[in-house]
Amino acid sequence: MLTIAVDCMGGDYAPREIVKGCVLAARELGYRILLVGDEEQIKRVLKEEKALNEPLLEVVHAPETVAMNEPPSVVLKRKDSSLFVAAKLVREGKAEGLVSAGNTGAVLAVGKFVVGAENEVERPAIGVALPNPKGKTVLIDVGANVDCKPKHLVQFAVMGHTYAESLLGIKNPRVGILSIGEEEGKGNELVKETYPLLKQTKLNFLGNAEGRDIYSGNFDVIVCDGFVGNVILKASESLGMAVLHMIKEEIKKSWLARLGALLMMPALNNFRRKADFTEYGGIPLLGAKKPVIITHGRANAKAIKNAVRVAGEFLHTNFNDTLVKNLKELIPQEARV
Amino acid sequence: MLTIAVDCMGGDYAPREIVKGCVLAARELGYRILLVGDEEQIKRVLKEEKALNEPLLEVVHAPETVAMNEPPSVVLKRKDSSLFVAAKLVREGKAEGLVSAGNTGAVLAVGKFVVGAENEVERPAIGVALPNPKGKTVLIDVGANVDCKPKHLVQFAVMGHTYAESLLGIKNPRVGILSIGEEEGKGNELVKETYPLLKQTKLNFLGNAEGRDIYSGNFDVIVCDGFVGNVILKASESLGMAVLHMIKEEIKKSWLARLGALLMMPALNNFRRKADFTEYGGIPLLGAKKPVIITHGRANAKAIKNAVRVAGEFLHTNFNDTLVKNLKELIPQEARV
Repeated sequence: MLTIAVDCMGGDYAPREIVKGCVLAARELGYRILLVGDEEQIKRVLKEEKALNEPLLEVVHAPETVAMNEPPSVVLKRKDSSLFVAAKLVREGKAEGLVSAGNTGAVLAVGKFVVGAENEVERPAIGVALPNPKGKTVLIDVGANVDCKPKHLVQFAVMGHTYAESLLGIKNPRVGILSIGEEEGKGNELVKETYPLLKQTKLNFLGNAEGRDIYSGNFDVIVCDGFVGNVILKASESLGMAVLHMIKEEIKKSWLARLGALLMMPALNNFRRKADFTEYGGIPLLGAKKPVIITHGRANAKAIKNAVRVAGEFLHTNFNDTLVKNLKELIPQEARV
Repeated sequence: MLTIAVDCMGGDYAPREIVKGCVLAARELGYRILLVGDEEQIKRVLKEEKALNEPLLEVVHAPETVAMNEPPSVVLKRKDSSLFVAAKLVREGKAEGLVSAGNTGAVLAVGKFVVGAENEVERPAIGVALPNPKGKTVLIDVGANVDCKPKHLVQFAVMGHTYAESLLGIKNPRVGILSIGEEEGKGNELVKETYPLLKQTKLNFLGNAEGRDIYSGNFDVIVCDGFVGNVILKASESLGMAVLHMIKEEIKKSWLARLGALLMMPALNNFRRKADFTEYGGIPLLGAKKPVIITHGRANAKAIKNAVRVAGEFLHTNFNDTLVKNLKELIPQEARV
């Protein structure tokens, strides 16, 4: 039976929604969950949910927390915080995966330094599967590594390839490097140095992807440094919200439009489900020794349950074994500079 | 009377839509337009539009073109191309501004090397006013400069400030630098080096902006290098199209939703007008000696007319004089490293 440690004190709706998510995960997925955080607060929610005696749930007390706005590095000194304790449970083998809706930078920090990276992985990276009309595209890295070297991007490409193949079921994923302009030789220094290395790998490397390809469905994996990936991810999310807000404002002005919106609601909700990446249960830090799943700060119970499910999928598919094998086999010696 | 040179052979709908746009510009704005390109083709459209004898329109023959997929640098060798000839008309003072829907890189090339930059400007940059629920945010640079130094970003900030103040009417624009994380010290090397310089300027510098701020309305100007800005701009556009496509697919599945969409159409069209940057008439290359306006490749007649209008606004507001003054006054000597 899989055991997942969940940081119950991180996220905008902690601990209530997180604890409720753990209850869902235990009941619906049958995983054993270690609920890490303030015991009293956690038990209060468990009681409300009539889950105090749920055999798959176990509370691990951690008196401190890391706030959303604190510098991420504090978590490494705050060894009694729910996030650090949860990560330590994974490192010590008491849990096989970690889920947190907390301070993203802090989750990254414990992922890298407490759970730790696979030996073959130079830098763990965050891959996110973004929706497009034809399916999904993995954008990697979206924030774990700010200044990258070409060899890191080559590893990210293999991580993204493995994610697309093992978790999303995409055969021989089409890999691109994010750039401006399609032709080889276009882009910034990092792209120009990485391109020839990617050509030497055994990946299905199609060359440069442009910004528009992130949502075009023409690539299955797009590689970029974590600075670029992070601003794109956050800009995309905020564009979505801005569009929704602006459309709502227009709709308010006319009762016909309000009626129309009402009739369209089921269709819009279907779309939202497809587009909303919290539905898929958070974003994995690829390359960590055990699954570390970062959910949105606004994660609700369902998102937490889905994040636990994703952690389970990484374990069931032996993702890390495949990743290590791919890193060895797909990158030839000459592309490891 | 203002004279604007329009490259009639660039863009997906050239020459028809471009020529029609020139006719609209002459008739509605009262500007003199030099229509540059294949004389025969241009006159055929003018005839269809009953504008052959329109006194404000003048055809300047240029036998060659630069295709959308050609390397931008070819334009500098192809001196008989419509784009090069149009730029030369500006350089020689026969026109006061340039509009093109053609190969963006090629327009940039003639903007930089034929029209040329103001002496005080190290590198012209592209600024785009993106819509948000509260108004507009100028993102600069979105593709003219791939690898930038801190001093370039400082100049971009002043260009964006001047654009926001002079063209968008925003008083004391709030300026940010695009980064990951809000606090000073967060970001990549370029951001970390640029931040202290921006603090020394007399701009209303608020610090780091995150990806989500591009559409949040919390900043009036956001500075980034042209690589990052370009991928964000293209990703945003493609996200918009992907969302539209995915919503349409959902709507097709239900007649109630189809009816709803019909009722909402006027509201959606209002939104689209606000969101569609072609409505505003293309994107300026800031810092060039004369206005160089790049429109979308898919620009239609209305977009071309609007681009001519924008070129006129730059001239009417003496944008370049203000920009040069601001570059001198807002950047202290110690921030010019």
